[in-house]
Amino acid sequence: MRSFERASLQPVKGYVPGEQPQNQALVKLNTNENPYPPAPEVLAALSEIPAEALRRYPNPTAEAFRRRAANLHGLTPDQLIATNGGDELLRLIFHTFAERGEQVLTTEPSYSLYEVLAAVHGITLNAVPLDAAFAVPEDFETTLAESKARIAFVVNPHAPSGKLFTRDEVRRWLEVFQGVLVIDEAYVDFVSPARKHELVSLIETHPNLLLLRTLSKGYGLAGLRFGYGLGQAALLAPMRHKTQDSYSTDAVAQQLAERALEAQDYAATTWERVRDSRAALQQGLRALGLSCFQSETNFVLTRVPGGAAEARRLCDCARDAGILLRYFDTPRLRDCIRISVGTEAQQASLLAAWQAALA
Amino acid sequence: MRSFERASLQPVKGYVPGEQPQNQALVKLNTNENPYPPAPEVLAALSEIPAEALRRYPNPTAEAFRRRAANLHGLTPDQLIATNGGDELLRLIFHTFAERGEQVLTTEPSYSLYEVLAAVHGITLNAVPLDAAFAVPEDFETTLAESKARIAFVVNPHAPSGKLFTRDEVRRWLEVFQGVLVIDEAYVDFVSPARKHELVSLIETHPNLLLLRTLSKGYGLAGLRFGYGLGQAALLAPMRHKTQDSYSTDAVAQQLAERALEAQDYAATTWERVRDSRAALQQGLRALGLSCFQSETNFVLTRVPGGAAEARRLCDCARDAGILLRYFDTPRLRDCIRISVGTEAQQASLLAAWQAALA
Repeated sequence: MRSFERASLQPVKGYVPGEQPQNQALVKLNTNENPYPPAPEVLAALSEIPAEALRRYPNPTAEAFRRRAANLHGLTPDQLIATNGGDELLRLIFHTFAERGEQVLTTEPSYSLYEVLAAVHGITLNAVPLDAAFAVPEDFETTLAESKARIAFVVNPHAPSGKLFTRDEVRRWLEVFQGVLVIDEAYVDFVSPARKHELVSLIETHPNLLLLRTLSKGYGLAGLRFGYGLGQAALLAPMRHKTQDSYSTDAVAQQLAERALEAQDYAATTWERVRDSRAALQQGLRALGLSCFQSETNFVLTRVPGGAAEARRLCDCARDAGILLRYFDTPRLRDCIRISVGTEAQQASLLAAWQAALA
Repeated sequence: MRSFERASLQPVKGYVPGEQPQNQALVKLNTNENPYPPAPEVLAALSEIPAEALRRYPNPTAEAFRRRAANLHGLTPDQLIATNGGDELLRLIFHTFAERGEQVLTTEPSYSLYEVLAAVHGITLNAVPLDAAFAVPEDFETTLAESKARIAFVVNPHAPSGKLFTRDEVRRWLEVFQGVLVIDEAYVDFVSPARKHELVSLIETHPNLLLLRTLSKGYGLAGLRFGYGLGQAALLAPMRHKTQDSYSTDAVAQQLAERALEAQDYAATTWERVRDSRAALQQGLRALGLSCFQSETNFVLTRVPGGAAEARRLCDCARDAGILLRYFDTPRLRDCIRISVGTEAQQASLLAAWQAALA
């Protein structure tokens, strides 16, 4: 059969997203959604969308949303780009800052989409292995300093481990790296306030820092597809004016995203609840003899002492109990399971099923 | 100042969308929105979106929408791709079917976005000049047959002229062209039923035909960003599985788009009203001594006998009357103005303002 696909795309494998089952009765602890719904104000805004907002083209750059988000972060609107989910921002970053044939860098393991985006764009991905505790290797700064990579991607807090890299680490990386350092902060809302973690203030002094945020996790809005990037205006401009589709975010999503950011108190309450449940989940897993990595996210990576076969068995057992989890069939993660933090009741069901299975 | 933009992107100029004014009192006859709002069922669906649909990731490929659209067109769901507006589909087409350095083909004039997408992707755009009546040149088939272009783009009905290329013409192009022929049917809903125009049935026999549809114009949903592509399953698969973002259309948009397609009677009524208003607009323009190209779209291209300076003066005069029009400052269109079909009242205001200006 005749194929019209460009030659360089033919060997590429696409990204495989976590399972999104039709069956609404299944408990999804597999794709790190927030267990709590978006703020009531967000839902209320839905019924207030005027027909005129649907009929007309939306604001091309989500100006009102950018003003609101800029205000929240102490930035100016031109230091923000609104995107159709965090994934659009990642694609734009590849397409804007790296030429076909050039290199980018990330850690191993990391968000598996980076590898797919690199392949689709004909860009070489250099993955630096993290150590057993998911820390960067000792020579990571040297690697960055000597790297020809145009972009480096670090998920922070890290996925799939949950580990937080500190502001000091990030600052040192920024200072030695010549390319754009993307800190994918998809999970940052769940970091314990006691850590006093914040990177936004580094933007002023670092023209190569790009922070990614999403409303999918922290604001319970995975279904809305809304994310944004933070960085110096000159860094973001070529994405906003050249590589991004003209009307990338729609009028409804812009409006709801703005309402979600306004409802900070509500959001903060869900983050606190997630942190409490995360601690309970870790305690429960440890009581079953499963080890847990420290997590500053809304998921927990657990290592199964029995190894890969046992990890798969536990996933199947959870599924039989109506609970989906995420299993990564990759060298370093075969004996691990990633569990999204759920409600206390959902977690209790999982722990009960595993207690029986491990008895 | 240090720039992080890839070298090949630096000289590229971005797409400039038509003006989207903050001032809601302005009458927008500049970006071909439908003068009528979406169906009442679409608005009603907004208040029925459950919190759960926002909290969870959406269906990655808008399955329910694709089933509905497939049913409407007599196709199967795998012969459809749902996209974040027609513009996303155009970008995916460039990114999927043409390699950096390869060629694509279009007509001149055409939708100005093609040129920008080609430049952004490092692809050469060969633009074949249409004749004075916006017909393709006599040797167009030979050009297509001999072309090394990976993709050819034809807007049909054509923008900015409004002209319809026939099914016979398209079929002949398909048969000689070796690449993917994209027929951008953004305006097809407004074609007079008397023309008995339809291209969907050509898909079965032509693996290189890709039709673009959008809900922005025909369904009064420019604010929603929803479009779709039609073609053989093997043609669409690499876009759906490799180059498209994993969750490109959101849960709200998927739901509303489905409702919009269901409300065919409502939509057809708006198309009929637009055709009536189009005829009235053309009559009014001709009465003022302005020539009009025949149009099968929801806009009319008028040529101003006084030339470019006079065309600009008429645009300014419309703006003073609170009406935005589209002026293209390009070689072949400087003495023309593109006017979106509005309500009868909006058109009467425009014609009255011009009558005074031309008196």
